[in-house]
Amino acid sequence: MYALGALTAQRTLFHTVDEPLPLDGGQSLARYTVAYQTWGQLNADRSNAILIFHALSGDSHVAGVHEDGRTGWWDFMVGPGLAFDTNRYFIICANVLGGCKGSTGPLSLNPATGRPYGTDFPVLTIHDMVRAQRPLLRLLGIEKLHAVKGASMGGMLALAFAQLYPEMTDRVIVMASAHANHAQAIAWNEIGRRAIMNDPLWRGGHYYDSALGPPKHGLGVARMIGHVTYISEGAMDRKFGRSLQSADKESFTFGIDYSVESYLAYQGSIFHQRFDANSYLYITRAIDYFDFGARTGGNLTSAFALTNARYAFFSYSADWLYSPERIKTMAHAAQAAGRKPSITGLKPRSAMMRSSSSRSRKRN
Amino acid sequence: MYALGALTAQRTLFHTVDEPLPLDGGQSLARYTVAYQTWGQLNADRSNAILIFHALSGDSHVAGVHEDGRTGWWDFMVGPGLAFDTNRYFIICANVLGGCKGSTGPLSLNPATGRPYGTDFPVLTIHDMVRAQRPLLRLLGIEKLHAVKGASMGGMLALAFAQLYPEMTDRVIVMASAHANHAQAIAWNEIGRRAIMNDPLWRGGHYYDSALGPPKHGLGVARMIGHVTYISEGAMDRKFGRSLQSADKESFTFGIDYSVESYLAYQGSIFHQRFDANSYLYITRAIDYFDFGARTGGNLTSAFALTNARYAFFSYSADWLYSPERIKTMAHAAQAAGRKPSITGLKPRSAMMRSSSSRSRKRN
Repeated sequence: MYALGALTAQRTLFHTVDEPLPLDGGQSLARYTVAYQTWGQLNADRSNAILIFHALSGDSHVAGVHEDGRTGWWDFMVGPGLAFDTNRYFIICANVLGGCKGSTGPLSLNPATGRPYGTDFPVLTIHDMVRAQRPLLRLLGIEKLHAVKGASMGGMLALAFAQLYPEMTDRVIVMASAHANHAQAIAWNEIGRRAIMNDPLWRGGHYYDSALGPPKHGLGVARMIGHVTYISEGAMDRKFGRSLQSADKESFTFGIDYSVESYLAYQGSIFHQRFDANSYLYITRAIDYFDFGARTGGNLTSAFALTNARYAFFSYSADWLYSPERIKTMAHAAQAAGRKPSITGLKPRSAMMRSSSSRSRKRN
Repeated sequence: MYALGALTAQRTLFHTVDEPLPLDGGQSLARYTVAYQTWGQLNADRSNAILIFHALSGDSHVAGVHEDGRTGWWDFMVGPGLAFDTNRYFIICANVLGGCKGSTGPLSLNPATGRPYGTDFPVLTIHDMVRAQRPLLRLLGIEKLHAVKGASMGGMLALAFAQLYPEMTDRVIVMASAHANHAQAIAWNEIGRRAIMNDPLWRGGHYYDSALGPPKHGLGVARMIGHVTYISEGAMDRKFGRSLQSADKESFTFGIDYSVESYLAYQGSIFHQRFDANSYLYITRAIDYFDFGARTGGNLTSAFALTNARYAFFSYSADWLYSPERIKTMAHAAQAAGRKPSITGLKPRSAMMRSSSSRSRKRN
């Protein structure tokens, strides 16, 4: 089969849902849009669809070259003949609700005011994000998925999908993720949120019409914190160590001296160009709220038992945010629930765990 | 011997040095003050003095009740009959140069302008801080120390002391510290500095006369980051887990939901009451610049060989900033240099590694 899709530019498509979406927080959205992309062809019996969920700062552009010129964030894994073979599978990925990559979120227009929602947008859960993608599958004529897959936050969406729609979910692939954020992971997200909300340019979340622009410094600090959590201590040693950025010796100022400072400062400084600070608040809050076992009184095994899927768990050996040990705990609960999970430990593709290459930069 | 010192309130003493202090960065201080305290009595042959160096946010008030009512940050270790027995030893501790607890630092008056230095204060090194304490020992009539001791940043000062004054240093006690900050530790310090300098109230470091007050939000974020690094992931799980602070369920706002958020927000919010944001910049920069092996071309063993001390290293099993593995590396270099070090692994005194009790709160 000739993979036409791989040779033409990817386009983002939009599905606007006109039925109300009740949310876990008690509010509802009357109308919302889901931005998505697809790869490959749906087969005759509509049984080859794989729904991929992106991570915190990701978008629907998983693979191929977008018409805007960007290469997808998982381009080395999704395509003709690749692990997620678009000659065999019909791949779908949608930007999450609350995001800033085409789906409805805080920077969308609030129909009640005609201005961007800002922090009038309702606080969401991971389950809300998953429910928002259900109508898209209806549109595409899909009643059962070959698999759902996600890494980091995406893994949480995959778990939530299997929980909300057990009859639709045959396989769940969870990479470098968690059934619930532990205290330290909540702490990092909260510090990032504080940094954003402390930035006077945040203006209570209503900064979209401000001549001073978005709270880019606060968002930058949040992003710097995130980047440290995406790279193992050992990988940081190997990549940066104590090397100085450009000078022969320390500057004896508070400017950039070390390479690691330069790397983080750069990552922090550019993030506002592609990501909305309010979306960062909403998405990290949803991540922190996620608790796969909460619906079964904290019993993780019971939570897995209520799903119908097979599970494949992947962990990265050097991941300190979602450690192999924590992922094993999750896999053991799935095992105890009779879900026969596989568990695979991965070495990072390079010295940097998840953020080294331009290709994988947008994964988290 | 009757320990009179333990029954009377501790007072901070001040030694003003009127000879210029040349600094590693090329500048010099014409005049500076060292705030210090002592415990116990110097013996007749002046051989029982122990110099303790405090950590990042510490001060000279190690033990006993200060006349301001505060109990010392290592009160359970320093006193009559305690590990650092003030019936036997003469204990000294001085606030570091660049600090904000009585010694000259960015909030001191700049004689050139008659106003606080702010960021006109020269950027310092750990070695500069140590040199600044040398005249104090002269004042006290001490030519040789029984021991120097420090934890975290204090351990770096102890190492630097042994390096600068080998003839004065018989024993070095280093706890939960490093011969040089690794890349991730630099990263955390740098993110904290960025958070402070991004705060518009920082005003380029000249905020002391501002009606709006100090950059407390930026300093708060820096402190929150610090606190996460002071507590192991497991201890955070045990102490906070995912427990909610007060409500029965999530607030669906960006306020405080989780206990860990509440803890960090509180620690961040009060820090400006006892610590100067500029001092945070200067001290963390000095920590990042410290490299015990730099004077011997990066050879740590050679660095230890140039000292005359015996070494005792202590690590905390759950310390992830200054891990037991890294401290072992340092001890092995001391061993290779023939310095016959001891190395002791400690369990945290409580579930919280370094920050649990009010007593130890000020250690870092």
